[in-house]
Amino acid sequence: MKCRVCGGKAFIKLHYPKMYLCADHFVEYFERKVKRTIERYKLLKPNEKVLVVVSGGKDSAVTAYVLKKLGYNVECLHINLGIGEYSEKSEQYVRKQCEVINAPLHIVRIRELLGWGIGEVKTRRPTCSYCGLTKRYIFNKFAHDNGFDVIATGHNLDDEASFIFSNLMNWNTEYLAKQGPLLPGEGKFVRKVKPLYELTEREVVAYALAVGLEYIIDECPHARGATTIEYKQILSELEEKRPGTKINFVKGYLRKRHLFEVELKKAELKECKVCGMPAQGEKCSFCRFWRLEKPINFKT
Amino acid sequence: MKCRVCGGKAFIKLHYPKMYLCADHFVEYFERKVKRTIERYKLLKPNEKVLVVVSGGKDSAVTAYVLKKLGYNVECLHINLGIGEYSEKSEQYVRKQCEVINAPLHIVRIRELLGWGIGEVKTRRPTCSYCGLTKRYIFNKFAHDNGFDVIATGHNLDDEASFIFSNLMNWNTEYLAKQGPLLPGEGKFVRKVKPLYELTEREVVAYALAVGLEYIIDECPHARGATTIEYKQILSELEEKRPGTKINFVKGYLRKRHLFEVELKKAELKECKVCGMPAQGEKCSFCRFWRLEKPINFKT
Repeated sequence: MKCRVCGGKAFIKLHYPKMYLCADHFVEYFERKVKRTIERYKLLKPNEKVLVVVSGGKDSAVTAYVLKKLGYNVECLHINLGIGEYSEKSEQYVRKQCEVINAPLHIVRIRELLGWGIGEVKTRRPTCSYCGLTKRYIFNKFAHDNGFDVIATGHNLDDEASFIFSNLMNWNTEYLAKQGPLLPGEGKFVRKVKPLYELTEREVVAYALAVGLEYIIDECPHARGATTIEYKQILSELEEKRPGTKINFVKGYLRKRHLFEVELKKAELKECKVCGMPAQGEKCSFCRFWRLEKPINFKT
Repeated sequence: MKCRVCGGKAFIKLHYPKMYLCADHFVEYFERKVKRTIERYKLLKPNEKVLVVVSGGKDSAVTAYVLKKLGYNVECLHINLGIGEYSEKSEQYVRKQCEVINAPLHIVRIRELLGWGIGEVKTRRPTCSYCGLTKRYIFNKFAHDNGFDVIATGHNLDDEASFIFSNLMNWNTEYLAKQGPLLPGEGKFVRKVKPLYELTEREVVAYALAVGLEYIIDECPHARGATTIEYKQILSELEEKRPGTKINFVKGYLRKRHLFEVELKKAELKECKVCGMPAQGEKCSFCRFWRLEKPINFKT
Protein backbone atom coordinates (compact mmCIF):
# COMPACT_ATOMS: atom_id res chain seq x y z
CA MET A 1 0.00 0.00 0.00
CA LYS A 2 1.03 3.54 -0.61
CA CYS A 3 1.37 6.63 1.54
CA ARG A 4 -1.73 8.73 1.30
CA VAL A 5 0.32 11.91 1.20
CA CYS A 6 3.23 11.21 -1.15
CA GLY A 7 2.43 7.85 -2.73
CA GLY A 8 5.68 6.40 -1.33
CA LYS A 9 5.89 2.98 0.29
CA ALA A 10 3.57 2.73 3.29
CA PHE A 11 5.22 2.29 6.69
CA ILE A 12 2.05 2.00 8.77
CA LYS A 13 -1.67 1.55 8.42
CA LEU A 14 -3.57 3.80 10.81
CA HIS A 15 -7.05 2.67 11.71
CA TYR A 16 -8.58 5.87 12.96
CA PRO A 17 -8.61 7.84 10.81
CA LYS A 18 -8.00 5.01 8.36
CA MET A 19 -4.94 5.72 6.21
CA TYR A 20 -1.58 4.47 5.09
CA LEU A 21 1.48 6.64 5.65
CA CYS A 22 5.16 6.38 4.78
CA ALA A 23 7.64 6.74 7.63
CA ASP A 24 8.31 10.44 6.98
CA HIS A 25 4.66 11.38 6.78
CA PHE A 26 3.82 9.26 9.80
CA VAL A 27 6.48 11.14 11.79
CA GLU A 28 4.96 14.39 10.60
CA TYR A 29 1.45 13.19 11.48
CA PHE A 30 2.55 12.06 14.94
CA GLU A 31 4.30 15.31 15.78
CA ARG A 32 1.37 17.37 14.51
CA LYS A 33 -0.89 15.35 16.76
CA VAL A 34 1.32 15.99 19.81
CA LYS A 35 1.38 19.68 18.94
CA ARG A 36 -2.40 19.73 18.65
CA THR A 37 -2.74 17.94 21.99
CA ILE A 38 -0.50 20.56 23.61
CA GLU A 39 -2.59 23.36 22.13
CA ARG A 40 -6.00 21.82 22.70
CA TYR A 41 -5.44 21.17 26.38
CA LYS A 42 -3.12 24.14 26.96
CA LEU A 43 -0.34 21.91 28.28
CA LEU A 44 2.75 24.04 27.62
CA LYS A 45 3.73 27.60 26.86
CA PRO A 46 6.68 28.28 24.49
CA ASN A 47 9.51 29.17 26.84
CA GLU A 48 8.72 27.09 29.84
CA LYS A 49 11.30 24.88 31.54
CA VAL A 50 10.01 21.34 31.00
CA LEU A 51 11.15 18.34 33.04
CA VAL A 52 10.46 15.06 31.25
CA VAL A 53 10.47 12.03 33.52
CA VAL A 54 12.26 9.31 31.53
CA SER A 55 12.17 5.64 32.51
CA GLY A 56 14.08 4.10 29.64
CA GLY A 57 10.85 2.92 28.04
CA LYS A 58 9.32 3.99 24.73
CA ASP A 59 6.69 6.41 25.99
CA SER A 60 8.88 8.77 27.97
CA ALA A 61 11.67 8.56 25.38
CA VAL A 62 9.27 9.59 22.63
CA THR A 63 7.84 12.36 24.83
CA ALA A 64 11.29 13.87 25.42
CA TYR A 65 12.24 13.43 21.76
CA VAL A 66 9.14 15.10 20.35
CA LEU A 67 9.07 17.98 22.86
CA LYS A 68 12.70 18.69 22.10
CA LYS A 69 11.99 18.54 18.36
CA LEU A 70 9.05 20.90 18.78
CA GLY A 71 11.49 23.38 20.30
CA TYR A 72 10.68 23.14 23.98
CA ASN A 73 13.26 23.76 26.69
CA VAL A 74 13.59 20.15 27.84
CA GLU A 75 15.61 18.52 30.59
CA CYS A 76 15.21 14.91 31.65
CA LEU A 77 15.01 13.22 35.02
CA HIS A 78 15.60 9.53 35.45
CA ILE A 79 14.84 7.80 38.72
CA ASN A 80 16.95 4.66 39.11
CA LEU A 81 14.66 2.40 41.13
CA GLY A 82 17.39 0.05 42.31
CA ILE A 83 15.70 -3.01 40.85
CA GLY A 84 18.87 -4.94 39.96
CA GLU A 85 19.69 -5.62 36.33
CA TYR A 86 16.44 -4.08 35.13
CA SER A 87 17.27 -0.67 36.59
CA GLU A 88 20.84 -0.71 35.29
CA LYS A 89 19.65 -1.54 31.79
CA SER A 90 16.98 1.17 32.01
CA GLU A 91 19.56 3.77 32.98
CA GLN A 92 21.78 2.82 30.05
CA TYR A 93 18.90 3.31 27.63
CA VAL A 94 18.05 6.65 29.18
CA ARG A 95 21.62 7.82 28.76
CA LYS A 96 21.59 6.91 25.08
CA GLN A 97 18.20 8.55 24.54
CA CYS A 98 19.28 11.83 26.12
CA GLU A 99 22.46 11.83 24.08
CA VAL A 100 20.47 11.37 20.89
CA ILE A 101 18.15 14.25 21.65
CA ASN A 102 20.87 16.29 23.28
CA ALA A 103 18.99 17.06 26.47
CA PRO A 104 20.52 17.45 29.95
CA LEU A 105 19.90 14.35 32.06
CA HIS A 106 19.53 14.27 35.83
CA ILE A 107 19.66 10.96 37.64
CA VAL A 108 18.35 10.21 41.11
CA ARG A 109 19.24 6.78 42.50
CA ILE A 110 16.76 5.46 45.01
CA ARG A 111 19.20 3.11 46.72
CA GLU A 112 21.84 5.80 47.23
CA LEU A 113 19.20 8.27 48.33
CA LEU A 114 17.07 6.12 50.60
CA GLY A 115 19.16 3.07 51.43
CA TRP A 116 16.93 0.49 49.72
CA GLY A 117 15.86 -0.33 46.20
CA ILE A 118 12.22 -0.70 45.25
CA GLY A 119 11.12 -4.21 46.22
CA GLU A 120 13.63 -4.47 49.06
CA VAL A 121 11.65 -2.62 51.70
CA LYS A 122 9.95 -4.66 54.41
CA THR A 123 6.43 -3.29 54.37
CA ARG A 124 2.87 -4.49 54.00
CA ARG A 125 2.32 -1.87 51.33
CA PRO A 126 2.32 -3.35 47.77
CA THR A 127 5.55 -2.69 45.88
CA CYS A 128 3.89 -0.83 42.99
CA SER A 129 2.10 1.37 45.49
CA TYR A 130 5.16 2.68 47.33
CA CYS A 131 7.16 2.81 44.09
CA GLY A 132 4.50 5.11 42.67
CA LEU A 133 4.39 7.34 45.71
CA THR A 134 8.21 7.54 45.73
CA LYS A 135 8.49 8.44 42.05
CA ARG A 136 5.70 11.00 42.23
CA TYR A 137 7.30 12.68 45.22
CA ILE A 138 10.77 12.73 43.72
CA PHE A 139 9.85 14.14 40.34
CA ASN A 140 7.63 16.78 41.87
CA LYS A 141 10.20 17.79 44.51
CA PHE A 142 12.98 17.74 41.93
CA ALA A 143 11.00 19.99 39.60
CA HIS A 144 10.04 22.26 42.48
CA ASP A 145 13.61 22.54 43.87
CA ASN A 146 15.01 23.33 40.44
CA GLY A 147 12.46 25.81 39.24
CA PHE A 148 10.82 23.74 36.46
CA ASP A 149 7.50 25.11 35.24
CA VAL A 150 6.05 21.78 34.29
CA ILE A 151 6.57 18.00 34.39
CA ALA A 152 5.82 15.93 31.30
CA THR A 153 5.17 12.18 31.51
CA GLY A 154 4.82 9.58 28.76
CA HIS A 155 1.26 8.36 29.38
CA ASN A 156 -0.36 7.37 26.10
CA LEU A 157 -3.96 6.82 25.03
CA ASP A 158 -3.91 3.14 25.98
CA ASP A 159 -2.65 3.96 29.48
CA GLU A 160 -5.35 6.54 29.96
CA ALA A 161 -8.17 4.46 28.52
CA SER A 162 -7.25 1.42 30.61
CA PHE A 163 -6.87 3.55 33.74
CA ILE A 164 -10.37 4.95 33.30
CA PHE A 165 -11.76 1.55 32.34
CA SER A 166 -10.23 -0.12 35.36
CA ASN A 167 -11.49 2.49 37.78
CA LEU A 168 -14.97 2.26 36.29
CA MET A 169 -15.01 -1.54 36.49
CA ASN A 170 -14.09 -1.25 40.17
CA TRP A 171 -16.05 1.96 40.77
CA ASN A 172 -13.02 3.69 42.26
CA THR A 173 -14.69 6.92 41.32
CA GLU A 174 -12.48 9.06 43.55
CA TYR A 175 -9.62 8.42 41.09
CA LEU A 176 -11.75 9.66 38.22
CA ALA A 177 -12.22 13.22 39.38
CA LYS A 178 -8.87 14.65 38.34
CA GLN A 179 -7.51 12.37 35.62
CA GLY A 180 -6.65 13.96 32.29
CA PRO A 181 -3.92 15.38 30.05
CA LEU A 182 -3.35 18.30 32.40
CA LEU A 183 -3.06 18.39 36.17
CA PRO A 184 -2.72 22.08 37.02
CA GLY A 185 0.02 23.11 39.43
CA GLU A 186 -1.06 24.25 42.89
CA GLY A 187 1.17 25.50 45.67
CA LYS A 188 4.21 23.25 45.73
CA PHE A 189 2.67 20.82 43.26
CA VAL A 190 4.20 21.45 39.86
CA ARG A 191 1.88 21.24 36.82
CA LYS A 192 1.85 17.78 35.18
CA VAL A 193 1.11 17.16 31.51
CA LYS A 194 0.76 14.20 29.14
CA PRO A 195 1.67 15.21 25.58
CA LEU A 196 0.98 11.68 24.20
CA TYR A 197 -2.55 11.69 25.63
CA GLU A 198 -4.23 11.14 22.25
CA LEU A 199 -1.69 8.74 20.72
CA THR A 200 -2.03 4.98 20.96
CA GLU A 201 0.69 2.68 22.23
CA ARG A 202 0.94 1.27 18.73
CA GLU A 203 1.59 4.72 17.30
CA VAL A 204 4.23 5.45 19.95
CA VAL A 205 6.04 2.21 19.15
CA ALA A 206 5.91 3.00 15.44
CA TYR A 207 7.21 6.51 16.01
CA ALA A 208 10.17 5.25 18.07
CA LEU A 209 10.93 2.83 15.26
CA ALA A 210 10.59 5.48 12.57
CA VAL A 211 12.99 7.93 14.23
CA GLY A 212 15.35 5.20 15.43
CA LEU A 213 14.89 5.68 19.18
CA GLU A 214 15.98 2.67 21.22
CA TYR A 215 14.31 1.79 24.48
CA ILE A 216 14.00 -0.95 27.09
CA ILE A 217 11.34 -3.50 26.26
CA ASP A 218 11.49 -5.53 29.48
CA GLU A 219 8.61 -5.12 31.89
CA CYS A 220 9.47 -4.14 35.44
CA PRO A 221 9.83 -7.45 37.36
CA HIS A 222 7.35 -6.15 39.93
CA ALA A 223 4.79 -5.18 37.29
CA ARG A 224 1.25 -5.49 38.51
CA GLY A 225 0.63 -7.25 35.23
CA ALA A 226 -2.51 -9.25 34.67
CA THR A 227 -5.37 -6.83 35.22
CA THR A 228 -4.01 -3.75 33.45
CA ILE A 229 -2.78 -5.80 30.50
CA GLU A 230 -6.13 -7.56 30.33
CA TYR A 231 -8.03 -4.27 30.29
CA LYS A 232 -5.72 -2.95 27.58
CA GLN A 233 -6.42 -6.06 25.55
CA ILE A 234 -10.19 -5.67 25.91
CA LEU A 235 -9.98 -2.07 24.75
CA SER A 236 -7.74 -3.04 21.85
CA GLU A 237 -10.20 -5.72 20.75
CA LEU A 238 -13.05 -3.22 20.88
CA GLU A 239 -10.86 -0.75 18.98
CA GLU A 240 -10.20 -3.29 16.27
CA LYS A 241 -13.91 -3.87 15.72
CA ARG A 242 -14.85 -0.22 16.03
CA PRO A 243 -11.86 2.04 15.29
CA GLY A 244 -11.98 5.13 17.44
CA THR A 245 -13.27 3.33 20.52
CA LYS A 246 -10.31 4.32 22.72
CA ILE A 247 -10.16 7.99 21.82
CA ASN A 248 -13.94 8.35 22.00
CA PHE A 249 -14.01 6.60 25.36
CA VAL A 250 -11.33 8.92 26.77
CA LYS A 251 -12.88 12.05 25.28
CA GLY A 252 -16.28 10.99 26.59
CA TYR A 253 -14.71 10.67 30.01
CA LEU A 254 -13.24 14.17 29.82
CA ARG A 255 -16.70 15.53 28.95
CA LYS A 256 -18.24 13.77 31.94
CA ARG A 257 -15.37 14.05 34.42
CA HIS A 258 -17.21 16.72 36.42
CA LEU A 259 -19.68 14.05 37.58
CA PHE A 260 -16.93 12.52 39.71
CA GLU A 261 -15.77 15.74 41.30
CA VAL A 262 -18.04 15.31 44.31
CA GLU A 263 -15.99 12.19 45.11
CA LEU A 264 -12.84 14.20 45.74
CA LYS A 265 -11.87 14.06 49.35
CA LYS A 266 -11.24 17.70 50.06
CA ALA A 267 -8.55 17.15 52.67
CA GLU A 268 -7.03 20.35 53.96
CA LEU A 269 -3.34 20.09 53.07
CA LYS A 270 -0.76 20.99 55.67
CA GLU A 271 3.02 21.28 55.30
CA CYS A 272 5.07 18.17 56.01
CA LYS A 273 7.05 18.91 59.16
CA VAL A 274 10.08 17.16 57.67
CA CYS A 275 10.28 18.45 54.10
CA GLY A 276 7.73 21.26 53.95
CA MET A 277 5.89 19.73 50.98
CA PRO A 278 2.09 19.30 51.00
CA ALA A 279 0.92 16.63 53.44
CA GLN A 280 -2.39 15.28 54.67
CA GLY A 281 -1.10 14.55 58.16
CA GLU A 282 1.91 15.80 60.07
CA LYS A 283 4.30 14.23 57.59
CA CYS A 284 3.85 13.70 53.87
CA SER A 285 3.44 10.10 52.74
CA PHE A 286 6.97 10.03 51.30
CA CYS A 287 8.74 11.14 54.50
CA ARG A 288 6.47 8.87 56.51
CA PHE A 289 7.06 5.81 54.36
CA TRP A 290 10.83 6.28 54.19
CA ARG A 291 11.02 7.41 57.84
CA LEU A 292 12.94 10.54 56.99
CA GLU A 293 13.98 13.00 59.65
CA LYS A 294 15.44 15.68 57.41
CA PRO A 295 14.38 16.89 54.00
CA ILE A 296 16.03 15.83 50.76
CA ASN A 297 17.15 18.73 48.62
CA PHE A 298 17.33 17.97 44.92
CA LYS A 299 18.75 21.32 43.87
CA THR A 300 21.49 20.69 41.33
CA MET B 1 -18.45 -33.95 41.73
CA LYS B 2 -20.91 -34.01 44.58
CA CYS B 3 -23.55 -31.61 45.87
CA ARG B 4 -22.16 -29.56 48.70
CA VAL B 5 -25.40 -29.84 50.64
CA CYS B 6 -26.51 -33.47 50.30
CA GLY B 7 -23.57 -35.24 48.65
CA GLY B 8 -25.80 -36.25 45.73
CA LYS B 9 -24.73 -36.02 42.10
CA ALA B 10 -23.81 -32.46 41.14
CA PHE B 11 -26.02 -30.76 38.57
CA ILE B 12 -24.09 -27.47 38.32
CA LYS B 13 -20.85 -25.89 39.37
CA LEU B 14 -21.36 -22.34 40.61
CA HIS B 15 -18.36 -20.06 40.40
CA TYR B 16 -19.31 -17.37 42.85
CA PRO B 17 -19.57 -18.53 45.50
CA LYS B 18 -17.72 -21.61 44.25
CA MET B 19 -19.75 -24.75 44.89
CA TYR B 20 -21.33 -27.80 43.33
CA LEU B 21 -25.04 -28.40 43.80
CA CYS B 22 -27.48 -31.12 42.81
CA ALA B 23 -30.57 -30.05 40.86
CA ASP B 24 -32.82 -29.90 43.93
CA HIS B 25 -30.41 -27.84 45.98
CA PHE B 26 -29.66 -25.57 43.06
CA VAL B 27 -33.38 -24.88 42.70
CA GLU B 28 -33.52 -24.13 46.41
CA TYR B 29 -30.45 -21.87 46.15
CA PHE B 30 -31.88 -20.00 43.16
CA GLU B 31 -35.24 -19.38 44.78
CA ARG B 32 -33.64 -18.26 48.03
CA LYS B 33 -31.57 -15.79 46.03
CA VAL B 34 -34.65 -14.38 44.30
CA LYS B 35 -36.36 -14.09 47.68
CA ARG B 36 -33.35 -12.29 49.11
CA THR B 37 -33.26 -9.93 46.13
CA ILE B 38 -36.93 -9.10 46.67
CA GLU B 39 -36.30 -8.41 50.36
CA ARG B 40 -33.01 -6.54 49.96
CA TYR B 41 -34.36 -4.08 47.41
CA LYS B 42 -37.93 -4.05 48.76
CA LEU B 43 -39.36 -5.09 45.39
CA LEU B 44 -42.66 -6.68 46.39
CA LYS B 45 -45.06 -6.83 49.33
CA PRO B 46 -46.89 -10.12 50.09
CA ASN B 47 -50.36 -9.52 48.70
CA GLU B 48 -49.67 -7.26 45.77
CA LYS B 49 -51.08 -7.91 42.34
CA VAL B 50 -48.02 -8.61 40.18
CA LEU B 51 -48.01 -8.43 36.38
CA VAL B 52 -45.13 -10.39 34.85
CA VAL B 53 -44.32 -9.42 31.29
CA VAL B 54 -43.59 -12.71 29.50
CA SER B 55 -41.93 -12.89 26.11
CA GLY B 56 -41.63 -16.64 25.66
CA GLY B 57 -37.92 -16.49 26.58
CA LYS B 58 -36.21 -18.02 29.59
CA ASP B 59 -35.85 -14.94 31.77
CA SER B 60 -39.48 -13.88 31.95
CA ALA B 61 -40.66 -17.50 32.15
CA VAL B 62 -38.40 -18.14 35.14
CA THR B 63 -39.50 -14.85 36.74
CA ALA B 64 -43.17 -15.81 36.53
CA TYR B 65 -42.44 -19.36 37.68
CA VAL B 66 -40.43 -18.37 40.74
CA LEU B 67 -42.75 -15.55 41.83
CA LYS B 68 -45.70 -17.90 41.60
CA LYS B 69 -43.81 -20.55 43.57
CA LEU B 70 -42.90 -17.98 46.22
CA GLY B 71 -46.63 -17.39 46.66
CA TYR B 72 -47.11 -14.08 44.89
CA ASN B 73 -50.35 -13.14 43.19
CA VAL B 74 -49.11 -13.38 39.60
CA GLU B 75 -50.76 -12.72 36.27
CA CYS B 76 -48.90 -12.65 32.98
CA LEU B 77 -49.01 -10.32 30.01
CA HIS B 78 -47.64 -11.30 26.62
CA ILE B 79 -47.26 -8.77 23.86
CA ASN B 80 -47.35 -10.43 20.46
CA LEU B 81 -45.08 -8.21 18.40
CA GLY B 82 -46.36 -9.36 15.02
CA ILE B 83 -42.91 -10.46 13.85
CA GLY B 84 -44.04 -13.41 11.70
CA GLU B 85 -43.12 -16.94 12.67
CA TYR B 86 -40.98 -15.72 15.59
CA SER B 87 -43.93 -14.09 17.32
CA GLU B 88 -46.25 -17.04 16.75
CA LYS B 89 -43.69 -19.42 18.23
CA SER B 90 -43.13 -17.07 21.18
CA GLU B 91 -46.84 -16.96 21.93
CA GLN B 92 -47.05 -20.76 21.88
CA TYR B 93 -44.25 -21.01 24.43
CA VAL B 94 -45.89 -18.41 26.63
CA ARG B 95 -49.16 -20.34 26.59
CA LYS B 96 -47.38 -23.50 27.70
CA GLN B 97 -45.43 -21.68 30.41
CA CYS B 98 -48.54 -20.10 31.90
CA GLU B 99 -50.33 -23.43 31.87
CA VAL B 100 -47.45 -25.04 33.73
CA ILE B 101 -47.44 -22.40 36.42
CA ASN B 102 -51.21 -22.01 36.37
CA ALA B 103 -51.21 -18.22 36.02
CA PRO B 104 -53.80 -16.15 34.11
CA LEU B 105 -52.39 -14.99 30.76
CA HIS B 106 -53.34 -11.80 28.96
CA ILE B 107 -52.29 -11.34 25.36
CA VAL B 108 -52.05 -8.06 23.46
CA ARG B 109 -51.42 -8.36 19.72
CA ILE B 110 -49.65 -5.39 18.23
CA ARG B 111 -50.87 -5.97 14.69
CA GLU B 112 -54.52 -6.25 15.73
CA LEU B 113 -54.16 -3.29 18.04
CA LEU B 114 -52.14 -0.92 15.87
CA GLY B 115 -52.40 -2.22 12.34
CA TRP B 116 -48.74 -3.11 11.86
CA GLY B 117 -46.27 -5.56 13.31
CA ILE B 118 -42.91 -4.46 14.68
CA GLY B 119 -40.54 -4.05 11.75
CA GLU B 120 -43.30 -3.21 9.29
CA VAL B 121 -43.67 0.46 10.13
CA LYS B 122 -42.18 2.97 7.70
CA THR B 123 -40.13 5.20 9.97
CA ARG B 124 -36.62 6.47 10.38
CA ARG B 125 -36.67 5.35 13.99
CA PRO B 126 -34.68 2.13 14.56
CA THR B 127 -36.89 -0.94 14.96
CA CYS B 128 -35.60 -1.83 18.44
CA SER B 129 -36.24 1.71 19.56
CA TYR B 130 -39.94 1.90 18.69
CA CYS B 131 -40.44 -1.72 19.72
CA GLY B 132 -39.10 -0.80 23.17
CA LEU B 133 -41.26 2.29 23.48
CA THR B 134 -44.32 0.32 22.36
CA LYS B 135 -43.78 -2.51 24.83
CA ARG B 136 -43.04 -0.17 27.73
CA TYR B 137 -46.18 1.81 27.06
CA ILE B 138 -48.39 -1.23 26.70
CA PHE B 139 -47.28 -3.06 29.80
CA ASN B 140 -47.47 0.08 31.89
CA LYS B 141 -50.90 1.08 30.57
CA PHE B 142 -52.16 -2.48 30.88
CA ALA B 143 -51.01 -2.65 34.50
CA HIS B 144 -52.47 0.78 35.21
CA ASP B 145 -55.83 0.05 33.57
CA ASN B 146 -56.18 -3.22 35.45
CA GLY B 147 -55.08 -2.14 38.89
CA PHE B 148 -51.79 -4.04 39.13
CA ASP B 149 -49.51 -2.84 41.93
CA VAL B 150 -46.28 -3.74 40.20
CA ILE B 151 -44.74 -4.97 36.94
CA ALA B 152 -42.00 -7.63 37.05
CA THR B 153 -39.59 -8.15 34.16
CA GLY B 154 -37.01 -10.87 33.55
CA HIS B 155 -33.80 -8.80 33.43
CA ASN B 156 -30.92 -10.84 34.80
CA LEU B 157 -27.46 -9.91 36.08
CA ASP B 158 -25.87 -10.20 32.63
CA ASP B 159 -28.47 -7.84 31.15
CA GLU B 160 -27.89 -5.30 33.86
CA ALA B 161 -24.10 -5.51 33.84
CA SER B 162 -23.91 -5.18 30.06
CA PHE B 163 -26.38 -2.29 30.08
CA ILE B 164 -24.26 -0.39 32.58
CA PHE B 165 -21.04 -1.35 30.80
CA SER B 166 -22.37 -0.21 27.44
CA ASN B 167 -23.59 3.12 28.76
CA LEU B 168 -20.26 3.71 30.46
CA MET B 169 -18.27 2.86 27.34
CA ASN B 170 -20.36 5.38 25.43
CA TRP B 171 -20.76 7.79 28.34
CA ASN B 172 -24.54 7.82 28.00
CA THR B 173 -24.63 8.87 31.61
CA GLU B 174 -28.23 10.06 31.48
CA TYR B 175 -29.30 6.40 31.23
CA LEU B 176 -27.34 5.57 34.36
CA ALA B 177 -29.27 7.73 36.80
CA LYS B 178 -32.27 5.50 37.37
CA GLN B 179 -31.21 1.99 36.44
CA GLY B 180 -31.61 -0.70 39.08
CA PRO B 181 -33.71 -3.56 40.44
CA LEU B 182 -36.51 -1.18 41.43
CA LEU B 183 -38.05 1.71 39.54
CA PRO B 184 -40.56 3.21 41.98
CA GLY B 185 -44.06 3.96 40.71
CA GLU B 186 -45.00 7.59 40.27
CA GLY B 187 -48.34 8.97 39.15
CA LYS B 188 -49.54 6.77 36.30
CA PHE B 189 -46.20 4.96 36.08
CA VAL B 190 -46.58 1.59 37.78
CA ARG B 191 -43.62 0.36 39.88
CA LYS B 192 -41.23 -1.90 37.93
CA VAL B 193 -39.07 -4.59 39.49
CA LYS B 194 -36.43 -7.11 38.41
CA PRO B 195 -36.47 -10.16 40.69
CA LEU B 196 -33.60 -11.87 38.78
CA TYR B 197 -31.33 -8.84 39.22
CA GLU B 198 -28.59 -10.80 41.02
CA LEU B 199 -28.78 -14.03 39.02
CA THR B 200 -26.61 -14.70 35.99
CA GLU B 201 -27.94 -15.79 32.61
CA ARG B 202 -26.19 -19.10 33.13
CA GLU B 203 -28.05 -19.64 36.41
CA VAL B 204 -31.38 -18.72 34.81
CA VAL B 205 -30.80 -21.23 32.00
CA ALA B 206 -29.86 -23.90 34.53
CA TYR B 207 -32.93 -23.17 36.62
CA ALA B 208 -35.27 -23.47 33.63
CA LEU B 209 -33.62 -26.80 32.82
CA ALA B 210 -33.85 -28.01 36.41
CA VAL B 211 -37.58 -27.30 36.76
CA GLY B 212 -38.39 -28.35 33.18
CA LEU B 213 -39.54 -24.97 31.86
CA GLU B 214 -39.50 -24.76 28.07
CA TYR B 215 -38.82 -21.50 26.29
CA ILE B 216 -38.02 -20.01 22.90
CA ILE B 217 -34.31 -19.93 22.15
CA ASP B 218 -34.46 -18.00 18.86
CA GLU B 219 -33.25 -14.40 18.96
CA CYS B 220 -35.62 -11.75 17.68
CA PRO B 221 -34.82 -11.32 13.96
CA HIS B 222 -34.46 -7.58 14.56
CA ALA B 223 -32.08 -8.07 17.50
CA ARG B 224 -29.60 -5.28 17.87
CA GLY B 225 -27.04 -8.05 18.23
CA ALA B 226 -23.34 -7.37 17.92
CA THR B 227 -22.57 -4.76 20.53
CA THR B 228 -24.65 -6.04 23.43
CA ILE B 229 -23.53 -9.62 22.84
CA GLU B 230 -19.92 -8.46 22.62
CA TYR B 231 -20.17 -6.58 25.91
CA LYS B 232 -21.77 -9.61 27.56
CA GLN B 233 -18.89 -11.73 26.29
CA ILE B 234 -16.29 -9.34 27.68
CA LEU B 235 -17.97 -9.39 31.06
CA SER B 236 -18.23 -13.16 31.00
CA GLU B 237 -14.52 -13.47 30.21
CA LEU B 238 -13.68 -11.17 33.09
CA GLU B 239 -16.06 -13.16 35.30
CA GLU B 240 -14.32 -16.39 34.38
CA LYS B 241 -10.94 -15.02 35.44
CA ARG B 242 -12.24 -13.25 38.51
CA PRO B 243 -15.51 -14.80 39.70
CA GLY B 244 -17.79 -12.15 41.16
CA THR B 245 -16.86 -9.51 38.58
CA LYS B 246 -20.43 -9.06 37.32
CA ILE B 247 -22.17 -8.85 40.67
CA ASN B 248 -19.49 -6.57 42.13
CA PHE B 249 -19.66 -4.34 39.07
CA VAL B 250 -23.43 -4.02 39.33
CA LYS B 251 -23.40 -3.51 43.10
CA GLY B 252 -20.63 -0.93 42.74
CA TYR B 253 -22.83 0.87 40.24
CA LEU B 254 -25.77 0.91 42.66
CA ARG B 255 -23.51 2.42 45.34
CA LYS B 256 -22.37 5.16 42.94
CA ARG B 257 -25.58 5.69 40.98
CA HIS B 258 -26.24 8.99 42.74
CA LEU B 259 -23.30 10.50 40.84
CA PHE B 260 -25.34 10.32 37.65
CA GLU B 261 -28.49 11.86 39.06
CA VAL B 262 -27.49 15.36 37.96
CA GLU B 263 -27.70 14.05 34.39
CA LEU B 264 -31.43 13.44 34.64
CA LYS B 265 -33.34 15.76 32.41
CA LYS B 266 -36.01 16.97 34.77
CA ALA B 267 -38.70 17.48 32.15
CA GLU B 268 -42.04 18.57 33.59
CA LEU B 269 -44.47 15.80 32.60
CA LYS B 270 -47.86 16.74 31.18
CA GLU B 271 -50.81 14.51 30.37
CA CYS B 272 -51.02 13.12 26.84
CA LYS B 273 -54.04 14.77 25.22
CA VAL B 274 -54.94 11.46 23.55
CA CYS B 275 -54.57 8.87 26.30
CA GLY B 276 -54.00 10.88 29.46
CA MET B 277 -50.77 9.09 30.31
CA PRO B 278 -47.58 11.03 31.23
CA ALA B 279 -46.09 12.88 28.25
CA GLN B 280 -43.23 15.25 27.65
CA GLY B 281 -45.02 17.16 24.91
CA GLU B 282 -48.68 17.39 23.97
CA LYS B 283 -48.86 13.71 23.15
CA CYS B 284 -46.96 10.84 24.71
CA SER B 285 -44.38 9.18 22.51
CA PHE B 286 -46.58 6.11 22.01
CA CYS B 287 -49.64 8.01 20.76
CA ARG B 288 -47.36 10.23 18.68
CA PHE B 289 -45.46 7.35 17.07
CA TRP B 290 -48.59 5.33 16.30
CA ARG B 291 -50.57 8.46 15.35
CA LEU B 292 -53.44 7.59 17.64
CA GLU B 293 -56.45 9.81 17.97
CA LYS B 294 -58.23 7.97 20.74
CA PRO B 295 -56.89 6.16 23.76
CA ILE B 296 -56.52 2.41 23.99
CA ASN B 297 -58.18 0.90 26.99
CA PHE B 298 -56.66 -2.36 28.15
CA LYS B 299 -59.18 -3.03 30.90
CA THR B 300 -60.13 -6.70 30.74
